[in-house]
Amino acid sequence: MELQAALGEGNDARLAAVVAALQPADLAAFLSAEGRNDPALAEQLLAHLTLSERARAFGYLDATLQARVAARLSPTALARLLGKMDADERADLFKLVNEDVQEAALRQMAREEREDLRRLASYEEGTGGALMTSDYVAVPENLTVAAALQAVRSTAPDAETIYQVYIIDHEHRLQGTVSLRELILGLPDQPLDELMRTELVTGQVDTAQEEVARLISRYDLLALPILDADQRLVGIVTHDDAMDVAAEEATEDMHKAATIGKLHRGIGQSGLLELYRKRIVWLVLLVFANILSGFGIAHFEATIEAYIVLVFFLPLLVDSSGNAGSQAATLMVRGLATGDVQLRQWGRHFGRELLVAGALGLTMAAAVSILGVLRGGPDIAFVVATSMIAVVIMGSLIGMSLPFLLSRVGWDPATASAPLVTSIADAVGVVLYFSIATATLGLPGA
Amino acid sequence: MELQAALGEGNDARLAAVVAALQPADLAAFLSAEGRNDPALAEQLLAHLTLSERARAFGYLDATLQARVAARLSPTALARLLGKMDADERADLFKLVNEDVQEAALRQMAREEREDLRRLASYEEGTGGALMTSDYVAVPENLTVAAALQAVRSTAPDAETIYQVYIIDHEHRLQGTVSLRELILGLPDQPLDELMRTELVTGQVDTAQEEVARLISRYDLLALPILDADQRLVGIVTHDDAMDVAAEEATEDMHKAATIGKLHRGIGQSGLLELYRKRIVWLVLLVFANILSGFGIAHFEATIEAYIVLVFFLPLLVDSSGNAGSQAATLMVRGLATGDVQLRQWGRHFGRELLVAGALGLTMAAAVSILGVLRGGPDIAFVVATSMIAVVIMGSLIGMSLPFLLSRVGWDPATASAPLVTSIADAVGVVLYFSIATATLGLPGA
Repeated sequence: MELQAALGEGNDARLAAVVAALQPADLAAFLSAEGRNDPALAEQLLAHLTLSERARAFGYLDATLQARVAARLSPTALARLLGKMDADERADLFKLVNEDVQEAALRQMAREEREDLRRLASYEEGTGGALMTSDYVAVPENLTVAAALQAVRSTAPDAETIYQVYIIDHEHRLQGTVSLRELILGLPDQPLDELMRTELVTGQVDTAQEEVARLISRYDLLALPILDADQRLVGIVTHDDAMDVAAEEATEDMHKAATIGKLHRGIGQSGLLELYRKRIVWLVLLVFANILSGFGIAHFEATIEAYIVLVFFLPLLVDSSGNAGSQAATLMVRGLATGDVQLRQWGRHFGRELLVAGALGLTMAAAVSILGVLRGGPDIAFVVATSMIAVVIMGSLIGMSLPFLLSRVGWDPATASAPLVTSIADAVGVVLYFSIATATLGLPGA
Repeated sequence: MELQAALGEGNDARLAAVVAALQPADLAAFLSAEGRNDPALAEQLLAHLTLSERARAFGYLDATLQARVAARLSPTALARLLGKMDADERADLFKLVNEDVQEAALRQMAREEREDLRRLASYEEGTGGALMTSDYVAVPENLTVAAALQAVRSTAPDAETIYQVYIIDHEHRLQGTVSLRELILGLPDQPLDELMRTELVTGQVDTAQEEVARLISRYDLLALPILDADQRLVGIVTHDDAMDVAAEEATEDMHKAATIGKLHRGIGQSGLLELYRKRIVWLVLLVFANILSGFGIAHFEATIEAYIVLVFFLPLLVDSSGNAGSQAATLMVRGLATGDVQLRQWGRHFGRELLVAGALGLTMAAAVSILGVLRGGPDIAFVVATSMIAVVIMGSLIGMSLPFLLSRVGWDPATASAPLVTSIADAVGVVLYFSIATATLGLPGA
């Protein structure tokens, strides 16, 4: 990459030119890359940018790198940088540095800025309050279009988006919104009230961040206004942050589906100990779940000893049950997450699953019965085929129902991970299989 | 819900008021809900809206419902509706209706509009071309800020976003972009060249839609300009469409992780036959993969007959191997999808996985060895503990490597689904377990 080459040359003028030509996100990705992550290098390269570009690139850096660079800066330099950052990113960084740095930086700020920062940094992680920025454009009621446009112009350099304008009353309660497009197309002395929309989609400071992202996505919003408990406008969440949240939530759900706990950083940046911790919990829990299958098998030891060929089909049957179950669970978990499936529809989905799983079971029974005849004769084939139908239907219904059940008791439905469903389906499958076998084949000594 | 009540009353004035107060996305969701999905009802309710609101709500309807409503409209009414829809949604709808409806609607349109529609409808699904809209604001080079603002005002009613303005040369090649914010803050007779950004992030008509979404997310764009093979600007993809694509891709990856094929609609709307088809393929393929485990077991039948207690630990060991493997696979699949893990880093991640899996294996071996002593004595405990370490490490390394391998041969790494990894890890686990058992315990007859 060009930047790498310019760094190697040590030609400062060329380096400055290369850095200035990069997108801030790309420069930040270069600096945050694993194995690099060097605060001195970050400081050196960021120095080639103007203050506002530097603030922008800085906001894209990995959080720990941000904190390490911030710790190297003088309080004045840090306060200047914080002043140019978006209010939401500023609050995020503020939470990461130690108290001395916080205090030193706060002393350099204007009172209003300081209070805004303290307030933004006070909301709980994962809520609309923690996600929002206070850099929005709000204008009072009863303005004309021309006056509103003038207000937009005077706020524009600082606001994160000027394309949605929020109209507030004297107590800062949100009355309506108007887009910059509508303002530009309006007549200069037209009253704002005529243009503004009053059917508003809003979030609260304590709305969960995935719900904030869902609202922005569903209504195709540029930004979602966030209100406090008294319905006062306190911030907005912009579309780009919503997109990041949606990606983060999707990653979390995928990890959950494979029994991996929440990682704070990407897999590439996560420490080995953290990876171990996030993986071991469910692996050990599932060991105990799988002991159930073991007891199932132990209970049928006599049947197994009499018909050892049954063991050949064991992994095939229990895995099929688990696979069909994790398919059903995944469909429901994702359906519930996207709002495509409603909690009250359990009965309808149970019926549909029964039909689909029945068809799946029949197809797979046909596939394995040939193998059954070849390896064990017609009796074994009958046992294997019947068991296949039974275990696929049972596994599917368990997988499909578990997310609903977890939701009902207040758990995240994504906890119905493939391994959990597989473990439960396995234990049930073992019992079904050997029960059918014992009933059909009989026990030699019995 | 209020709309439901108003429908029941049959009071037309009240119905009109309720419909007008709804967000278009909510009205569309009501009409598209499963069990409703009635084109006559949709036509009736949409009639209460102004043409542009109707076009907006219509664009949110489920695709099949859109097509069914469109088929009921007269060619003139359809052409009027199409004329008010966003260009990208118009093209999507156009592809869904039959040729007679297409021809009738096309005849009602102006030549330019017709060509634009034909062109947009011609791009392959899943590309930047199919996703983009042609309703953007482009202005020629060498304008002043005032002239550019005037151009924006005259395009504003039709453009999907006016907040990014694209500057093109006489051959329609993209020269730069300027934001409406910069225009509003600029001096009226300042030349555009001074304001515009020339380091551009762009996509091509054949760029995959997930890459388009990734670019918009990475660079926090409002819209991504799309160029044709001659670098001419032909459209833009807006942030809201990118968010939809990202959600769609996440759903697809989650489904793939559970061996479910691509569904065209959500689970609630999908037909039973389609669900069957999308699930059966891998279930049957995996049956054959699981036969490998069966053969592994068959090979060790003598050992099993001699030490029947070994079967008790079988599900526990092979499931642990599969669970650790699907954790590792999921981490890599998601890491590769988000760009957090690079293909060339296989070696580094292999090393890291070896350390983490080693620690996981040791912990789990400790957990099962107690059970081993209780059920089979110290020899069995030794076999089970050693096997646990071996199968967890093997399963993890297989799970972690498979996504890289699939990527290298040009497959989607998400094909490394939990069930596939589990099946492979199971077969390897069976062989490892019984080999260790045979070596440690010996065979009675041998």
